[in-house]
Amino acid sequence: MDGSAFWPGKRETMQRYFTDEKLSIGEIFTASADDTHHMKNVMRFRPGDAFHMVDGSRHTFLCEITSAGETVECRPLELVEEAPELPVDITVYCPLLKGEKFDWMIQKATELGAHAFSIYDADRSIVKLDEKKRRKRIERYMKIIREASEQSRRQHIPEIDFVPAVKELSLDAFDHVLFAYEGNASTPAASLNETLQALSGGDRIAFIFGPEGGFSEAETEALSSHNSIRLGPRILRAETAPLYALSAISATFE
Amino acid sequence: MDGSAFWPGKRETMQRYFTDEKLSIGEIFTASADDTHHMKNVMRFRPGDAFHMVDGSRHTFLCEITSAGETVECRPLELVEEAPELPVDITVYCPLLKGEKFDWMIQKATELGAHAFSIYDADRSIVKLDEKKRRKRIERYMKIIREASEQSRRQHIPEIDFVPAVKELSLDAFDHVLFAYEGNASTPAASLNETLQALSGGDRIAFIFGPEGGFSEAETEALSSHNSIRLGPRILRAETAPLYALSAISATFE
Repeated sequence: MDGSAFWPGKRETMQRYFTDEKLSIGEIFTASADDTHHMKNVMRFRPGDAFHMVDGSRHTFLCEITSAGETVECRPLELVEEAPELPVDITVYCPLLKGEKFDWMIQKATELGAHAFSIYDADRSIVKLDEKKRRKRIERYMKIIREASEQSRRQHIPEIDFVPAVKELSLDAFDHVLFAYEGNASTPAASLNETLQALSGGDRIAFIFGPEGGFSEAETEALSSHNSIRLGPRILRAETAPLYALSAISATFE
Repeated sequence: MDGSAFWPGKRETMQRYFTDEKLSIGEIFTASADDTHHMKNVMRFRPGDAFHMVDGSRHTFLCEITSAGETVECRPLELVEEAPELPVDITVYCPLLKGEKFDWMIQKATELGAHAFSIYDADRSIVKLDEKKRRKRIERYMKIIREASEQSRRQHIPEIDFVPAVKELSLDAFDHVLFAYEGNASTPAASLNETLQALSGGDRIAFIFGPEGGFSEAETEALSSHNSIRLGPRILRAETAPLYALSAISATFE
């Protein structure tokens, strides 16, 4: 670590990019069209300037610009030792939220280490979109997520997709399914802290959060075989609850 | 608890107001001008309708409307058993942030249990305000904080004020002073989790967060006798760091 603050002290932190390619030290590669634009027009990089590139194997390389003309050529110089990913994979299940709240939530949740996002159809969802609008939204969300991944120095860019309603979700691939719900007589809630003790490194967790109006009775019934989790004694807004959970998980495991 | 979700399921949760008066069961009181407006024009309350009122001793009463004319008269019916306040008092020290980020931060930090906010002058602060604008800002911030306190069902409304630069801060009244900084050779950082083990219920904590560009060297030097705390391995934006800390503290203590 270079002693910089947590937040983007641009003067102090290294610009970060992502590629699906696998890089090797010394082997020159050509930057993608998007990165070329950013390198030339935003960063105004010139030969000799340095940046970080995370490759398709989630290794981070310190790279230098070797030439910056029509295309930008770069050379990986050394491997960067870092472990920015949460040791458990958290997929955040959340319906769309009103206004900019969903944008804000996915940006913050990406900073806080979410592994993926699944946007489900909640019974009380206020926002409904047709297929065409959904595709456009995914493009916009991926831009937010990608930028937040670069800024927070992650090695993994979370994926985001639309999924069906709660009772039709396929959750079998997860080691744990948790949902943020205060509980009632038939589904008493556990505290998050207690629940975290049962998780192990590498576990895949689906964490399901409700819309502004909360889960419907049918949804809590459909989720009743899973673990309902209390997120403290205050009432959190829909967009705050995932951030609380991810922060607590990070503080416990990292 | 009534089995409602964490977020404002308006149909399911009780409207909450605050008063500096001390209430007693059975003793009728008159709602304030602001609350009267909200009760009549937003909630459309009529005699017999119920709400929660937190009084000057931070006791929460279930109340009913007894008459709703020019003024609204209310009767406390019973004390509500609840403990929505963090067991440690966290004062969030943070400079103003660009655009709507500061508004977002104080809203979320209020939901997450912050006790107070102190806006300090950071060396790298981007936003600077004169005295008149500061007074207007405090009014706006108090509105955000008050609404977030009501919505999240708190018993305490955090205060907010402008304070001087880091090296002139009076921090003697606090039991612990923490600052969110990754550390360097002269001020190695502790993990938040380790640090939380040293806190006891009732402790007063100043938690100092930097601006977008991070602390200056002079600031980290001025803070070097206090505890620098790492907030996980990812780079959090300035407005995210306080939310991470408060969430982790809540998950540990509540």
